[in-house]
Amino acid sequence: MNKIEHIGIAVKNLEESNILFGKLFGKPHYKVETVESEGVNTSFFQVGENKIELLEATKDDSPIAKFIDRKGEGIHHIAFDVDDIDSEITRLKAEGFIVLNDTPKRGADNKLVAFLHPKSSNGVLIELCQEIKE
Amino acid sequence: MNKIEHIGIAVKNLEESNILFGKLFGKPHYKVETVESEGVNTSFFQVGENKIELLEATKDDSPIAKFIDRKGEGIHHIAFDVDDIDSEITRLKAEGFIVLNDTPKRGADNKLVAFLHPKSSNGVLIELCQEIKE
Repeated sequence: MNKIEHIGIAVKNLEESNILFGKLFGKPHYKVETVESEGVNTSFFQVGENKIELLEATKDDSPIAKFIDRKGEGIHHIAFDVDDIDSEITRLKAEGFIVLNDTPKRGADNKLVAFLHPKSSNGVLIELCQEIKE
Repeated sequence: MNKIEHIGIAVKNLEESNILFGKLFGKPHYKVETVESEGVNTSFFQVGENKIELLEATKDDSPIAKFIDRKGEGIHHIAFDVDDIDSEITRLKAEGFIVLNDTPKRGADNKLVAFLHPKSSNGVLIELCQEIKE
């Protein structure tokens, strides 16, 4: 794991939260992106070497909508940058972590992503992400 | 705000979680520290320019014990490094954020810290921290 790539925060209203987090950081988000397959609209802020990703559900049955129903708005996941997502999946499974998708899928921000189940990591939803180089 | 200083994760058993997160990061924590005033034992991992702080309650009525009772183990807060915590407190209050302690207090890792109430920041407990230079 090289570094924390981003922290994902589930919000109800992306437009309002973009304003709120813009005030917090003293600068605006630098991009927005919709990931249809995950049912989310996202926006990104840069803070030091990390990003903050705000996540708004686009449909009622998306993972973010379900998360907010259950727990309310708040921190949803931490994403770690890795060089080789397949070897990290193999390594972490061998260490006892539960990997939710063995085959990395395409996420926001030009990344291949895989998730570890929170129940194997002290309640923390962990994302592994590897930049797609094309 | 310069960068994310650390992410705080509430855990039930620090010793077990040190092993678990050591496996996740592929390296051990580099220090432990008790903050009596907050009723916590903490441990720190370095990941890129950020730290991960694990937090275990030392008493039943500490904020971390109450958090785990209410929400279970998981991500507790995000801490941002600031140069001048007093001016950030003033700035953020003017922007409408609720500051839990107007007077910064001494936290773990040689820091002056102040917290923003989650209800003013989309459910995210935010810590401001300024390194103490002595």
